[in-house]
Amino acid sequence: MLLNTYEPWKFAFSADTDFDNIKKDSYGIIGVPFDSTTSYHSGSRLGPVVVREASYGFEKYNTNFKSDLDTTFYDFGDVNVVPGNCEATCRIVEDTVREILDLGVKPITIGGEHSASIGVIKALTEKYEKLTVVHLDAHRDLAFDFIGEKYSHATVMRRVHELGVDLVQVGIRSSSWEEEEFVKSTYNIQTFKNKDVHRHMDAVEYYLATVETPIYLSVDMDVFDPAIAPAVGNPAPGGLFTSEVEDVIKALAFKEVVGLDVVETATDKLGENTAVTAAKVIYDFLSLI
Amino acid sequence: MLLNTYEPWKFAFSADTDFDNIKKDSYGIIGVPFDSTTSYHSGSRLGPVVVREASYGFEKYNTNFKSDLDTTFYDFGDVNVVPGNCEATCRIVEDTVREILDLGVKPITIGGEHSASIGVIKALTEKYEKLTVVHLDAHRDLAFDFIGEKYSHATVMRRVHELGVDLVQVGIRSSSWEEEEFVKSTYNIQTFKNKDVHRHMDAVEYYLATVETPIYLSVDMDVFDPAIAPAVGNPAPGGLFTSEVEDVIKALAFKEVVGLDVVETATDKLGENTAVTAAKVIYDFLSLI
Amino acid sequence: MLLNTYEPWKFAFSADTDFDNIKKDSYGIIGVPFDSTTSYHSGSRLGPVVVREASYGFEKYNTNFKSDLDTTFYDFGDVNVVPGNCEATCRIVEDTVREILDLGVKPITIGGEHSASIGVIKALTEKYEKLTVVHLDAHRDLAFDFIGEKYSHATVMRRVHELGVDLVQVGIRSSSWEEEEFVKSTYNIQTFKNKDVHRHMDAVEYYLATVETPIYLSVDMDVFDPAIAPAVGNPAPGGLFTSEVEDVIKALAFKEVVGLDVVETATDKLGENTAVTAAKVIYDFLSLI
Amino acid sequence: MLLNTYEPWKFAFSADTDFDNIKKDSYGIIGVPFDSTTSYHSGSRLGPVVVREASYGFEKYNTNFKSDLDTTFYDFGDVNVVPGNCEATCRIVEDTVREILDLGVKPITIGGEHSASIGVIKALTEKYEKLTVVHLDAHRDLAFDFIGEKYSHATVMRRVHELGVDLVQVGIRSSSWEEEEFVKSTYNIQTFKNKDVHRHMDAVEYYLATVETPIYLSVDMDVFDPAIAPAVGNPAPGGLFTSEVEDVIKALAFKEVVGLDVVETATDKLGENTAVTAAKVIYDFLSLI
Amino acid sequence: MLLNTYEPWKFAFSADTDFDNIKKDSYGIIGVPFDSTTSYHSGSRLGPVVVREASYGFEKYNTNFKSDLDTTFYDFGDVNVVPGNCEATCRIVEDTVREILDLGVKPITIGGEHSASIGVIKALTEKYEKLTVVHLDAHRDLAFDFIGEKYSHATVMRRVHELGVDLVQVGIRSSSWEEEEFVKSTYNIQTFKNKDVHRHMDAVEYYLATVETPIYLSVDMDVFDPAIAPAVGNPAPGGLFTSEVEDVIKALAFKEVVGLDVVETATDKLGENTAVTAAKVIYDFLSLI
Amino acid sequence: MLLNTYEPWKFAFSADTDFDNIKKDSYGIIGVPFDSTTSYHSGSRLGPVVVREASYGFEKYNTNFKSDLDTTFYDFGDVNVVPGNCEATCRIVEDTVREILDLGVKPITIGGEHSASIGVIKALTEKYEKLTVVHLDAHRDLAFDFIGEKYSHATVMRRVHELGVDLVQVGIRSSSWEEEEFVKSTYNIQTFKNKDVHRHMDAVEYYLATVETPIYLSVDMDVFDPAIAPAVGNPAPGGLFTSEVEDVIKALAFKEVVGLDVVETATDKLGENTAVTAAKVIYDFLSLI
Repeated sequence: MLLNTYEPWKFAFSADTDFDNIKKDSYGIIGVPFDSTTSYHSGSRLGPVVVREASYGFEKYNTNFKSDLDTTFYDFGDVNVVPGNCEATCRIVEDTVREILDLGVKPITIGGEHSASIGVIKALTEKYEKLTVVHLDAHRDLAFDFIGEKYSHATVMRRVHELGVDLVQVGIRSSSWEEEEFVKSTYNIQTFKNKDVHRHMDAVEYYLATVETPIYLSVDMDVFDPAIAPAVGNPAPGGLFTSEVEDVIKALAFKEVVGLDVVETATDKLGENTAVTAAKVIYDFLSLI
Repeated sequence: MLLNTYEPWKFAFSADTDFDNIKKDSYGIIGVPFDSTTSYHSGSRLGPVVVREASYGFEKYNTNFKSDLDTTFYDFGDVNVVPGNCEATCRIVEDTVREILDLGVKPITIGGEHSASIGVIKALTEKYEKLTVVHLDAHRDLAFDFIGEKYSHATVMRRVHELGVDLVQVGIRSSSWEEEEFVKSTYNIQTFKNKDVHRHMDAVEYYLATVETPIYLSVDMDVFDPAIAPAVGNPAPGGLFTSEVEDVIKALAFKEVVGLDVVETATDKLGENTAVTAAKVIYDFLSLI
Repeated sequence: MLLNTYEPWKFAFSADTDFDNIKKDSYGIIGVPFDSTTSYHSGSRLGPVVVREASYGFEKYNTNFKSDLDTTFYDFGDVNVVPGNCEATCRIVEDTVREILDLGVKPITIGGEHSASIGVIKALTEKYEKLTVVHLDAHRDLAFDFIGEKYSHATVMRRVHELGVDLVQVGIRSSSWEEEEFVKSTYNIQTFKNKDVHRHMDAVEYYLATVETPIYLSVDMDVFDPAIAPAVGNPAPGGLFTSEVEDVIKALAFKEVVGLDVVETATDKLGENTAVTAAKVIYDFLSLI
Repeated sequence: MLLNTYEPWKFAFSADTDFDNIKKDSYGIIGVPFDSTTSYHSGSRLGPVVVREASYGFEKYNTNFKSDLDTTFYDFGDVNVVPGNCEATCRIVEDTVREILDLGVKPITIGGEHSASIGVIKALTEKYEKLTVVHLDAHRDLAFDFIGEKYSHATVMRRVHELGVDLVQVGIRSSSWEEEEFVKSTYNIQTFKNKDVHRHMDAVEYYLATVETPIYLSVDMDVFDPAIAPAVGNPAPGGLFTSEVEDVIKALAFKEVVGLDVVETATDKLGENTAVTAAKVIYDFLSLI
Repeated sequence: MLLNTYEPWKFAFSADTDFDNIKKDSYGIIGVPFDSTTSYHSGSRLGPVVVREASYGFEKYNTNFKSDLDTTFYDFGDVNVVPGNCEATCRIVEDTVREILDLGVKPITIGGEHSASIGVIKALTEKYEKLTVVHLDAHRDLAFDFIGEKYSHATVMRRVHELGVDLVQVGIRSSSWEEEEFVKSTYNIQTFKNKDVHRHMDAVEYYLATVETPIYLSVDMDVFDPAIAPAVGNPAPGGLFTSEVEDVIKALAFKEVVGLDVVETATDKLGENTAVTAAKVIYDFLSLI
Repeated sequence: MLLNTYEPWKFAFSADTDFDNIKKDSYGIIGVPFDSTTSYHSGSRLGPVVVREASYGFEKYNTNFKSDLDTTFYDFGDVNVVPGNCEATCRIVEDTVREILDLGVKPITIGGEHSASIGVIKALTEKYEKLTVVHLDAHRDLAFDFIGEKYSHATVMRRVHELGVDLVQVGIRSSSWEEEEFVKSTYNIQTFKNKDVHRHMDAVEYYLATVETPIYLSVDMDVFDPAIAPAVGNPAPGGLFTSEVEDVIKALAFKEVVGLDVVETATDKLGENTAVTAAKVIYDFLSLI
């Protein structure tokens, strides 16, 4: 680095990446610029760019939580995706996350479509025997397949569930009959619909407090109300407010959280509020953890 | 239809239109791509296109209301409007709705500007002796004329009121002194301003429960807060939230609702949230009725 | 003016500007199309244009407050700014406001970046011995300097505080450690963070009711939630709702308010909601005062 | 005007409007924010705002033509239009232009839709016995009526032709069979299609040089290629380049031009190129005349 | 269809689709809303919607070519695509085109990404022993595979070439070294780069005149200059002008053209010029053929 | 770098930056995200982000010039600018470029506003006794000061000229009377206006061939026609085409070019054509040099 320059393509406040001296128990960001299975509006492949750019709008001191962002974390760049091949891309993500875990680092993934979570969580389940996935989303993403495809943004949590993890779904307000039947047929999927969150945030917080396994947090940006996050693949009116997602993150602050993804930011406009809010989720997470 | 194709220009989940076998007591959609009397920002003529396109983002199962969208309805296409002539366009709408009513079908109108409601309600008053119009809007639309024009988006509810219907205005937050005086001078216009709705939704629900006549529901998209529905002709800050409009629709679910219009969606951008929310109003209505 | 024309570049409802007959104790609007020190997203120089344009969407009767907009006010046009020189621009604003005060008129400033407030308040402190600045903002703007610069949108309230005024900061949710320490070290800066406003609006209202000095109201549009006002230089999720800002303005209605600024509207799109909401702040202010 | 302010929405370089001292043989700008008969994409009502705003991007010295913009001209503001009533609006425009002519001033009209030209030219034909209208447009606008309406952007040149003027249509590339037949049936409509202009600009220039009557120039912005002017009501690929329109204006520099309109700029975005190019047409005209 | 309505999303001027009375040797439109293998900017899945909407901006009489659009053609709707599976989607397209050919109808495909052409041309090669594909594109699309994928927008012409057709590539200005080597190694790929077209259109026309086989025309919208068609997946500056593509279509007017596709229109904005120009390609084709 | 990742915001094809092994006579990119003195539309601070992002749309093989991009170059990141202080920012740029030159590397600067060139050229004049600046721009940028400011985008070439360099201005179409007089009063400023370029490109090429000093190339994106590059601070209709700028770069291919800047790209939209074209200027330059 020259004396007067910086690398604007890295998440703000990230540490210099010296692979010989990676700090243990730190976090590491990767981007997954992939949106091939999107069924409605595409564009989330630009998520990693716009979310990183938006990260420069925050202060080191997190006023909301009265805390400095002093967690050590790295920005490892973007994964080489295979446009049009979700399964191959998931495998590359999985391999990359395995590399990260081998460095003693916990993964933070910026999507891209939600399918990115499959590879990340697969790699994590090799390391952690039990895992609870806290899944913030407007949709359940529990379809067995989507028009015949098993790897898709619409099936991601079904694939993840097949790995044996527990699921906590928060903010749900769109699903199919089959998904509802599937949830009823399982014992380890807990649901808090959007109106449950509006009315009973304390119940959500209490439930999360009782989780005893390591936790993985997966945030589909469409969990927010589209007034806040309009640039998503499948906007669903009636979503969560900013403060509600803050409360969920705060509820996880004292738990062992072994990874985070923030996916489905689909805008080509720098400074757009979906990107700003996605950056804030990562910023708040790193401030609190 | 070929084996592998579908008609994307029809509202999602609409039935095939076989005019020899129209189901009685079903609903029928028409679009009215007209915005000539718009006084501030124009563009609602594109409403019918963008609202239909947005309808493809919903599931058949309405998770919010735990109900399948299984009401039979048709999409009859758009009305041939006369750009620049509101009165002529209203007459064409009226004739078209009369045709629809003759088929035993109840009309759902996608606007276009609010003036479309005049023709629809005129045709309905011929069929229903008493009618209550539940009118969700930021504005009263009760001007006697607008810069001399009697047919206009700004006078629509005055024309409707002259037909002898009762009015329930919900979400009002912008009006003229003359409109307020007019309301005071009548006996059959009930008002719930935006803050009344925020604070006393139960009163709104109770009032709607007491309506004994058939009901027509007219939704000007500017009733929503502009954070949710920014693309309207006359944005008025401080509007209703998505869940509040859901509650109004739910309150009408057990009443006899003989028609619906959703007007003033004014965007040229597919997937924009005003269009998504307008599509959701129709989707929720059809799921609940 | 010709018989059938009007001047659309003036704020709606403003009086004709006849400099020989300016009404005492009226208000006067100036625009400051300046955004040189913006640190994140630029564009607020277009604020004066888009806010004035948006003013044409309102009725003379303010339904919300049941009051006509009958305060006399003028629109004096825009100040000649010096792109790239904040200090020089602040001096020109100061001189212009002094001219306005000499006419017996109270200034309303449309920004442009927040630095415009420095000149306005400087001129006011010459006229009013004691002054309380009510500052609605997501940020404290209390940095001593910004990358070495003393005149900046990020330092504006520090410069203002140095003039000896009392500060009430409302809606704060982003600040630096240094700013927090500075606030603790002073006696006359009162803070209501965004969550304080959400939960304890009555406390805010009570506090404002107790202010005994003349008041200056400075509204940075980023105090609103970005869902409502997305087009600002530094969007900060989790902000105030429209009704909360209404309540603050209402709380000031019976006080002596000697000036207002509405700054940081940064959009090039006519009818965009940030501009509409900025126009509404001025419109509500003029309806209530 | 205060010492340091200016009125930013008046066309740049316009003279102060002192109705007691209007200079004879000067030009006067009016805006007509009307777009009710638009048949395809609406929005030209914002033309007067965005074209004036764009005028601030030009220098007093017109480098292209090596000439200062030193023609005296005024900006008289916007006409009060009647949304939804084209005939009434045309009459108001006509009255306003008559007032302007009575002041000894020649009208420059910023649209709004093309129908504005009807009133302007009607007023001019009372003053000038013979008139040639040079009409730059992608479309002939010669329909007798449009879905039954006689006053419309699609019929404007038919109405104008009925006033007895000669027509020169330049840039034509879209028309109906009936319009072509009508042109053949008349003796005083001269046509230069877009490809004629590309290949034989000298013929256009020669023809214009031979016109002996006073000339009125009407520029529909869709005459330009949509690459240059995308924001028009009816974009037609394959249009004129900037330099070709410059050449037409230059060809008119030594003729008696008694009025100009620039219409159909339909954008809500400040700085958009259609607006910039429309402003340049007026700027070049005023530099050369 | 009701008396006063029409189906606004069918391509303008398309005939009613009565499958019992399809006219032989007519044309039939299908949309392929698929963009999963896009390697740079996504969004072409919306092409079928926006191109159809733009078709309503044209007159039945094609002034440019002095010819009515009187070719009979149908709009068969959109193909059911499989998001994320290009090969499966190509197979569905192929089956659908086979159905269309069985009706005696020639296919016109609106993309979606360029891979759609594979299925179409595969079905055509079963019917026509020899076929020449005239391919207008900025890119050769001749990669053997793309990051391991054989079915992709980047490999489409390689797959097509493997079917034994002759290729004429027009407007090329971006390719890889491997593609250039491949072209040199074949005998039946003719290239006209963008500058060849600018300078020697007569050579292109002459070459096309000599083609003796049936012709299939494939138009990737990025063949146009991005000034004209900015909304494409891979914009390449320095492309063809509108009149140049018109000339190519005109050169094909007297040949046997057995199909057309217009692909890679990637915008969500109705009325955007890429969509207008894509609609014009189909409109001109149908006017001339 | 992990096995499967890359740094997506470095200019495509740039070499890894190992400061211990920088190749002599290579090129090095810096971004200058600064736009404080912009006088019309702001936003060029985002240039470095969007231009780098757009660089990923190009192939290693430059088909246009039949040449691989095999020049070694680095991407050194962005300079730390001082918002609101042009002089300080110019000094930082100057220091940074001095550092780059000390590494034996020639600077390529992505703006940001044009003032960035001052620091770059100042550093270069210390190294090269004689220098010719080839300046592609719609404007001369030769004002002595701009509203009193000596450091500004509007004065940049005056400051540069004061350093004793020769100037060749290409594409000029907007200037003040004072600038024209200044050019006449000097001996070493050569001008090719936009129409000179359109008609006599051979004269431009010939002139450039005769330059005997090292050359610095400064490209203000507004030199292009706004149809091609609409997102600039001061759009000026009637500019250069893509192929004309290509020809200028080609004419410099055999000269000693010691630096390049590409400035005034002012868009927040990824994939916008101004950004794509700016990236192409750098890409073509690196392919040819």
